[in-house]
Amino acid sequence: MPSQRNPKNSYGRERRADAQIHIYGSHAAEAALGNMARPILRVTATANAANRIADLLARRNAEPVIVSPRDLDRMLGEGAVHQGVTVEVGPLPPLDVEDLHEASIVLVLDQITDPHNVGAILRSAAAFGAGGVVMTAHHAPPLSGALAKAASGALDTIPVVLAANLARALEELGQIGFIRVGLDSEADGFMEVQHLGEKVALVLGAEDKGLRRLTRENCDFICALETASTLRSLNVSNAAAVALHTIRQAQKSRAL
Amino acid sequence: MPSQRNPKNSYGRERRADAQIHIYGSHAAEAALGNMARPILRVTATANAANRIADLLARRNAEPVIVSPRDLDRMLGEGAVHQGVTVEVGPLPPLDVEDLHEASIVLVLDQITDPHNVGAILRSAAAFGAGGVVMTAHHAPPLSGALAKAASGALDTIPVVLAANLARALEELGQIGFIRVGLDSEADGFMEVQHLGEKVALVLGAEDKGLRRLTRENCDFICALETASTLRSLNVSNAAAVALHTIRQAQKSRAL
Repeated sequence: MPSQRNPKNSYGRERRADAQIHIYGSHAAEAALGNMARPILRVTATANAANRIADLLARRNAEPVIVSPRDLDRMLGEGAVHQGVTVEVGPLPPLDVEDLHEASIVLVLDQITDPHNVGAILRSAAAFGAGGVVMTAHHAPPLSGALAKAASGALDTIPVVLAANLARALEELGQIGFIRVGLDSEADGFMEVQHLGEKVALVLGAEDKGLRRLTRENCDFICALETASTLRSLNVSNAAAVALHTIRQAQKSRAL
Repeated sequence: MPSQRNPKNSYGRERRADAQIHIYGSHAAEAALGNMARPILRVTATANAANRIADLLARRNAEPVIVSPRDLDRMLGEGAVHQGVTVEVGPLPPLDVEDLHEASIVLVLDQITDPHNVGAILRSAAAFGAGGVVMTAHHAPPLSGALAKAASGALDTIPVVLAANLARALEELGQIGFIRVGLDSEADGFMEVQHLGEKVALVLGAEDKGLRRLTRENCDFICALETASTLRSLNVSNAAAVALHTIRQAQKSRAL
């Protein structure tokens, strides 16, 4: 089931139909198999792992290639914590900002490039009930491998929009009712004391570069998380988790 | 400045005087050089990086070995984001639980082994004003390299206690006035609604194994963070950041 080629769209490298997308690790592989929108090209697993996911494989009509753990090590490279299974998949159907209109929390990632951080952010987004993640199509990690593993299945459960133009995506989020809140550890105001709306788009930049100018200009306000020392910043995925929790608690307390 | 040898103590591998401890990356290396309790054995840096930290080097009387970025790649292995500098250091003087008696928040890590997660946890601990971190002497990552880089300098600013017996350390924390709060995503009660004390020891287990039985038995209570779905857990460093923020906000609101 190859994806469409559309040379006008600027999706990331692995969105090309000819690129291999591997999703490994128990949670990530099971979520891919469980996601009926996800094209499954080939499952490679140890006998044990194949046995563990036999029901999912049957439901997807997938016959696994049985290999040794060492074969998987060689196939995926050192450091890939595959837990006995990798699934070669096709890309998910592309989504637009408007597809997120029912969400009450959306995350927007401005050129965050570390796959472990982006994966952990997707995982937290799913845990705190965010309805989608918008990220830059360029300067973003491939939606596979290390990112999928760190996302622990969230890559196949949370909608991801790849935006060629993030400023435009922020405008669109504003048009469909989202308050756009940019996080910046050097901002004057604290997120904890802001009145956040019923629909919040939380905007995060890379740790070294922060929010780009146009991203910043398309936010409704910029604020910081309240830490003990303004000299001390958080890892970006940790900042995302704290901000998501803060937004969720605020939305919940107003709903009571 | 070699450390003392004490065969009766069971500190981690790198606490031995004959093990090399490398601390690389700008923030981590600068924090090590700025920490007068930290023995500096050798600084290896690019000309640019050495220039950038000239003041710190002068203050520590350290003459850097100047190398090329590629030499550093080779020395530290692929994937080490050294940013042009690595410092070979000795271990910090060992600390005991009683050394943390003035803290209002302490973190306790029960066999968390991933160096990136532990490093990010140290960084969040410093950001949210925790007074120290207790971790198991065994089944814990070396206090160097990837952990120090992820901690972004916090390894040299936040007191770390290595406990040979974590249950005993928890008892001691109780004796000096800490409420010991264990985090478990499957617990019935939520941390957000608990009355937390003025002195809190937040106890975290590894993602796969959770809190060990004796660790759990030495907690005053066990609770979860309020997420959208109990099926969805957080990365352990993200959970630590959210819990630290929650504790800090609660302590602050009571102080007002």
